[in-house]
Amino acid sequence: MPIFIKRRSRTMGASPGTLIHIGEQKTGKTRISLIDYDGENLQEKELDSIEAAFPLKDLPTVTWINIDGLHEIDVIEKTGQYFNIHPLVLEDILNTGQRPKSEEFEDFIFVVLKMLYYNENGEELNSEQISLIFGRNFLISFQEIQGDVFKNVRERIRKPNTRIRKAGCDYLAYALIDAIVDHYFLILETLGENIEILEEELIENPTSKTMETIHGLKREMIYLRKQIWPIREIINNLVKGDSSLIGEPTHLYFRDVYDHTIQIIDTIESFRDILGGMLDMYLSAVSNKMNEVMKVLTIIATIFIPITFVAGIYGMNFKFIPELEWRWGYLMFWGIIALVVGVMTTYFKKKKWI
Amino acid sequence: MPIFIKRRSRTMGASPGTLIHIGEQKTGKTRISLIDYDGENLQEKELDSIEAAFPLKDLPTVTWINIDGLHEIDVIEKTGQYFNIHPLVLEDILNTGQRPKSEEFEDFIFVVLKMLYYNENGEELNSEQISLIFGRNFLISFQEIQGDVFKNVRERIRKPNTRIRKAGCDYLAYALIDAIVDHYFLILETLGENIEILEEELIENPTSKTMETIHGLKREMIYLRKQIWPIREIINNLVKGDSSLIGEPTHLYFRDVYDHTIQIIDTIESFRDILGGMLDMYLSAVSNKMNEVMKVLTIIATIFIPITFVAGIYGMNFKFIPELEWRWGYLMFWGIIALVVGVMTTYFKKKKWI
Amino acid sequence: MPIFIKRRSRTMGASPGTLIHIGEQKTGKTRISLIDYDGENLQEKELDSIEAAFPLKDLPTVTWINIDGLHEIDVIEKTGQYFNIHPLVLEDILNTGQRPKSEEFEDFIFVVLKMLYYNENGEELNSEQISLIFGRNFLISFQEIQGDVFKNVRERIRKPNTRIRKAGCDYLAYALIDAIVDHYFLILETLGENIEILEEELIENPTSKTMETIHGLKREMIYLRKQIWPIREIINNLVKGDSSLIGEPTHLYFRDVYDHTIQIIDTIESFRDILGGMLDMYLSAVSNKMNEVMKVLTIIATIFIPITFVAGIYGMNFKFIPELEWRWGYLMFWGIIALVVGVMTTYFKKKKWI
Amino acid sequence: MPIFIKRRSRTMGASPGTLIHIGEQKTGKTRISLIDYDGENLQEKELDSIEAAFPLKDLPTVTWINIDGLHEIDVIEKTGQYFNIHPLVLEDILNTGQRPKSEEFEDFIFVVLKMLYYNENGEELNSEQISLIFGRNFLISFQEIQGDVFKNVRERIRKPNTRIRKAGCDYLAYALIDAIVDHYFLILETLGENIEILEEELIENPTSKTMETIHGLKREMIYLRKQIWPIREIINNLVKGDSSLIGEPTHLYFRDVYDHTIQIIDTIESFRDILGGMLDMYLSAVSNKMNEVMKVLTIIATIFIPITFVAGIYGMNFKFIPELEWRWGYLMFWGIIALVVGVMTTYFKKKKWI
Amino acid sequence: MPIFIKRRSRTMGASPGTLIHIGEQKTGKTRISLIDYDGENLQEKELDSIEAAFPLKDLPTVTWINIDGLHEIDVIEKTGQYFNIHPLVLEDILNTGQRPKSEEFEDFIFVVLKMLYYNENGEELNSEQISLIFGRNFLISFQEIQGDVFKNVRERIRKPNTRIRKAGCDYLAYALIDAIVDHYFLILETLGENIEILEEELIENPTSKTMETIHGLKREMIYLRKQIWPIREIINNLVKGDSSLIGEPTHLYFRDVYDHTIQIIDTIESFRDILGGMLDMYLSAVSNKMNEVMKVLTIIATIFIPITFVAGIYGMNFKFIPELEWRWGYLMFWGIIALVVGVMTTYFKKKKWI
Repeated sequence: MPIFIKRRSRTMGASPGTLIHIGEQKTGKTRISLIDYDGENLQEKELDSIEAAFPLKDLPTVTWINIDGLHEIDVIEKTGQYFNIHPLVLEDILNTGQRPKSEEFEDFIFVVLKMLYYNENGEELNSEQISLIFGRNFLISFQEIQGDVFKNVRERIRKPNTRIRKAGCDYLAYALIDAIVDHYFLILETLGENIEILEEELIENPTSKTMETIHGLKREMIYLRKQIWPIREIINNLVKGDSSLIGEPTHLYFRDVYDHTIQIIDTIESFRDILGGMLDMYLSAVSNKMNEVMKVLTIIATIFIPITFVAGIYGMNFKFIPELEWRWGYLMFWGIIALVVGVMTTYFKKKKWI
Repeated sequence: MPIFIKRRSRTMGASPGTLIHIGEQKTGKTRISLIDYDGENLQEKELDSIEAAFPLKDLPTVTWINIDGLHEIDVIEKTGQYFNIHPLVLEDILNTGQRPKSEEFEDFIFVVLKMLYYNENGEELNSEQISLIFGRNFLISFQEIQGDVFKNVRERIRKPNTRIRKAGCDYLAYALIDAIVDHYFLILETLGENIEILEEELIENPTSKTMETIHGLKREMIYLRKQIWPIREIINNLVKGDSSLIGEPTHLYFRDVYDHTIQIIDTIESFRDILGGMLDMYLSAVSNKMNEVMKVLTIIATIFIPITFVAGIYGMNFKFIPELEWRWGYLMFWGIIALVVGVMTTYFKKKKWI
Repeated sequence: MPIFIKRRSRTMGASPGTLIHIGEQKTGKTRISLIDYDGENLQEKELDSIEAAFPLKDLPTVTWINIDGLHEIDVIEKTGQYFNIHPLVLEDILNTGQRPKSEEFEDFIFVVLKMLYYNENGEELNSEQISLIFGRNFLISFQEIQGDVFKNVRERIRKPNTRIRKAGCDYLAYALIDAIVDHYFLILETLGENIEILEEELIENPTSKTMETIHGLKREMIYLRKQIWPIREIINNLVKGDSSLIGEPTHLYFRDVYDHTIQIIDTIESFRDILGGMLDMYLSAVSNKMNEVMKVLTIIATIFIPITFVAGIYGMNFKFIPELEWRWGYLMFWGIIALVVGVMTTYFKKKKWI
Repeated sequence: MPIFIKRRSRTMGASPGTLIHIGEQKTGKTRISLIDYDGENLQEKELDSIEAAFPLKDLPTVTWINIDGLHEIDVIEKTGQYFNIHPLVLEDILNTGQRPKSEEFEDFIFVVLKMLYYNENGEELNSEQISLIFGRNFLISFQEIQGDVFKNVRERIRKPNTRIRKAGCDYLAYALIDAIVDHYFLILETLGENIEILEEELIENPTSKTMETIHGLKREMIYLRKQIWPIREIINNLVKGDSSLIGEPTHLYFRDVYDHTIQIIDTIESFRDILGGMLDMYLSAVSNKMNEVMKVLTIIATIFIPITFVAGIYGMNFKFIPELEWRWGYLMFWGIIALVVGVMTTYFKKKKWI
Repeated sequence: MPIFIKRRSRTMGASPGTLIHIGEQKTGKTRISLIDYDGENLQEKELDSIEAAFPLKDLPTVTWINIDGLHEIDVIEKTGQYFNIHPLVLEDILNTGQRPKSEEFEDFIFVVLKMLYYNENGEELNSEQISLIFGRNFLISFQEIQGDVFKNVRERIRKPNTRIRKAGCDYLAYALIDAIVDHYFLILETLGENIEILEEELIENPTSKTMETIHGLKREMIYLRKQIWPIREIINNLVKGDSSLIGEPTHLYFRDVYDHTIQIIDTIESFRDILGGMLDMYLSAVSNKMNEVMKVLTIIATIFIPITFVAGIYGMNFKFIPELEWRWGYLMFWGIIALVVGVMTTYFKKKKWI
């Protein structure tokens, strides 16, 4: 089950801005990687300590620091101090139960998003919190685990004459957000396939397992929705906001992500409607099944109960039962049976039960 | 099943603006047709290559280039370069899973719409993406297949003194959008007829097939809704937008399309409500049926079980059962039977079961 | 069934503004009646041709031209030409599947409304489209059939010192719209009575017919709602609009109609809620009924099946069954039967089944 | 049943502003009572005719005229003429099917509200329409019956040094509206108690009567809601409106009533949700009951049907049935019976049916 | 059951601003505790009477007066007089059925919130009303019982160099509101755990108890929702309001509480959706169970009823039944039985009933 609420009890009562990592530790050592580039040059390396990245902050090149793993709080703390980040922002980065949101500050913009992915056996939907802080010429990204969602962005940076190499930090931020939002389409494709499989199962052979699957998909949809609705607002704020950190040419790109978000939301809503309809279908299938069971019972019972009664009559020991003495009594009995069965069968045929 | 989400996985990770055709290839060769007209003159021809249309761009006549088939990417690309279209727009044209939308640029307005049609045997609802780009004196339309939705517009252009011949590119854009929106009425008429047929079936003889049909119609409604809601917003933007590309006299026409869209939306919502009510009717019909089955079973069982018992009594081998010795014992037995059956029948009549 | 969508296929592809009457022809000859009045004078006559009314257009008196029947297109066309009405407006007047709406032009205001009425046997809800075009001193009303909804307005005009005689065209427009909206109250009263009758039926003797009636009422409600919601907006636009054609003193009257519309909408919503609740009651009544059937079956079966077994035992032909030889064997048998019946009856009483 | 729509047919077609009392006559003679006060003086008397109150209109003291009974139209008419009240307002006062609303005029503010109360045996929810018209130093209240909802306000006025004596007409209007809104809390308390009683009944012994009670409460809730939602808007308009008739210090008091209204609305919505949940509980209780009935039937039938078959075997008259000759045949028979019963009982225990 | 409406009848008719404590008395003596601090100094003591705190009001230090217990009305009254608090505000403080709200006055801001907590055995959700009044350098908090929700805030104040010691009254107000809102997360965690337990129960062994638990959780959710939605608005007002009492630097902190509130609301909505889905699962589980019961009955009945009939035939006493005389008649009988059982079993296997 996707976790809807993280244990926050640990921080309760702590002063706001106290840095405590909420959520499970998903990676070993915190890994810091740096990419520093402009149109001409590119520098890419792994850092042992976050301090090594600080001198690059004031260079005009775009400096992208990626931090994988949130449990080493002193790394986050030092970064916060050097880049002059408000303690409440750092608290939000560390609290992995954060709701997606964006906040504009004077020197930087802060964005929290959720990356969703199915675990290895493709059964459980997991989420990873990704935070971005980007200013005029630096961008810091915080990931819970060492994921590969940004791999494609890195590769595009490595190529010399791409648009990303020529653009600034706002375009890099766009590229990363776009990568995350694009990833939702993968989730939707998987969900869409699951829904189609379920639909066939529903028509061919609905079992009580089907009901659980529908319920599970509904829960995933609720969770997905909760993560994606805020993104719409976030990107809207970034585009409509008057922050000078996002240049005019990048607006068009953000609008493109916005369109994708709307499309994802639309699709989720459609899926919800479809799942709701599937529930109705399941319940009606169960009703139909019971109807069929009842019919079988009724047909058997209404045919055999009367003829059993007839057999019962001629099993009686009355001294005087004329039929018993008749020459063709037994044949007459079978005649009655045939008659009853015939009448009943006709009745059921008329009722379209058989 | 109408496809709710197209495979986007292929473009994932690609740089934004990378031109990849998403969707199945629905036509053979890309076909380019050109109509160039003003009040006096009309020129209509098929082009072998898109370059042949470029010189017409700067003439004051209205130049309508229609491109059927999106899989030949270089045609799209050349058009984009010549008309100075942003790569993101070209990407949207090629991605046939696009949500209907409009975007205003300095030199042109970009509109994406969905044309819906039933396939040949009238059973499946298909969609075709149609994109329009129109500037001051050119309009480029992109279709997935070589359809005939614009046939009527073409014929109106061919007549010399029609309003369309005297008006500009904005009116042509209106005429094309109007043709697409008008087409939805056909879909609604078909749906309305299907709903009426279903309703009669529901009252006369509801089967589990009926349920599937209701579900299918609901899905089509969800899909239709998803395609049409955005059109409302699109046309609203075109009318309310301050783009100088749409002249004042054409506003009234766009408002007319807007009214049609609202009417379509209204009808879809009504259909949804009606379908919801039909589901309730179906479930209640199933309940009633089961009730009837139960009644038959109960009537038969409650009449015959007691009298079978009576027959059982006189089939016993006790040494001393006085009734068995009686002269009129067997007649008495039939008297008891008649009594039981009479009482039961009266009871059921009172209960209105028979 | 109220028709939710009219066949528009006939106009599809026609140039916008092409005049085609959509809807069935409901009256014989088009009938044109004219009332021309001011505070002092009143002139009322039937016209043979619409041209006879044209000279009155520019007089300062209020000229009300009422046209019953929409199928004679040339009448509409000539009116349009003389009063300088946009072809799209004429198209809307002729298309009786129009959604209620209002549009302001420089010289006149155009309003389309729906008049609802039950047919003669009071079983089917029909609709008639009524269009109004009013300028500074003329008002043209278009009706599908020769109805009497405006009879009262006419009578008020005939009286010399009424407010309507002193007021202008805007007040006449108000009076006509008010007459139409007032008519909805009649429909609501009928619906309210039907709902009350249904409610009693539901408590006393719900049948599968009841379900169909609920469904029918729900459909009428959906249809009603679709016709009335837009009126709210229409009147709001008229009041809030800055058209000089509606004078300040008339605003108060339009606000009154607005209040009535809100009240109608409120009542419809209440009715919808009540109908929703009635559906639940029906379904629960069906469940209760089945429960009762089941109980009868269970009581009979659980009493008689065990005692039939007992009778079966003593019908066996084993050589050695001691009880058969007993003097009081048969009495003992009846004792067992009495015991079983007693225990069962007590059990059912405890369960409150009997 | 609370009446959702009053017969308006009588006024249909009448000129707007025609004074006709719609609703049943609930009191005998129209009773006019007058309270005239300022900080120092207080005058309280019953009037025989409304004219006696007119001279007080222009005095600086607060003049409160209370009219009980709406069927004597000339009283209303004279009041209207003297105080210069628009005929549409008088029409609204007399039409007791009015929706709660407020309207601001130059000289006065007009407010219509609904007072709800249970009839004597506490079973039926009735409503009374109360209209207020207040200007700078007069307030006229119209009631359908001679109620005591304003008793407390009167008593507060009679005490010499209360705030109400020092304040103006706007505060008096507030006090009256507050008295009406406060009265809704009584209704809600009664409803809350009914819901709690119902909830216990639902868990202990749900009958088909329970369903009717739920339905009845839902209807009351729909009715209540319809009356209270508009109040929110009314008070909002009074506070936000720029009428000079409501002084700044009274705004705070109106805000207080506004808060109460919101609280009432909140509670009604909660009640609706709870009632919705109770319906689900009822339906599931009915299902559970049927399940239990079925189980009893199934247990009895599946135990006795097989053993009755065994008894049937040994009741057969075949010449050669070896068991019948055995010494311990009859004992063996009982052994088989014990075995079958044992197996069945174990099976049912495993299934948790017994 | 959480109480949805407090008895307000006691105050009905009283003059607005009359101080009456509504709600049960939850604590013994009213307890007044005082904390007075600035960056350097801290003074903390219990007061015997509220008057002892008054002199501190005008000092520049932050003065926090906490009052536990609302039943001693004179304490509230004296506080109100000294701090110049409007009687309506005091009335709101004493009425513990108040809806959460905030109001801005010239000298202070008034906030009412609800603290929720489970009672000792963790079964019932209780609420406590907490009111805050804060001005430039004083804050008065009113609690119903002597709770420990503010304990952590107190401890942070006791530490010398914390942010809270350096900040003003607005920050203290933030800290208290934050403590209350943070407490909701605890409630949500408990609810989340209960939902998970319920979900397992639902899949493994749903009983009618399960239904009651779902209903109970739904009610708690309704209650929770009613308390939390207004908080969103409250904090929004505080942040967006232009009161000079809340400094710019504190805005960021209020925005943080706002985010938490949104997150709580989101989670509640998700829980509601999940509970709705669980209800469907429960109903379908009940249906499935009944289906299974029916199947067992049908299988037993349809196998044994026909073969009992066969046994009945050969129990008849006709003079001439040839089979009875046959040598292998009895064996033939068993053959027929085996055949019938075999056919039936095959049929049920095909139907997947066994």
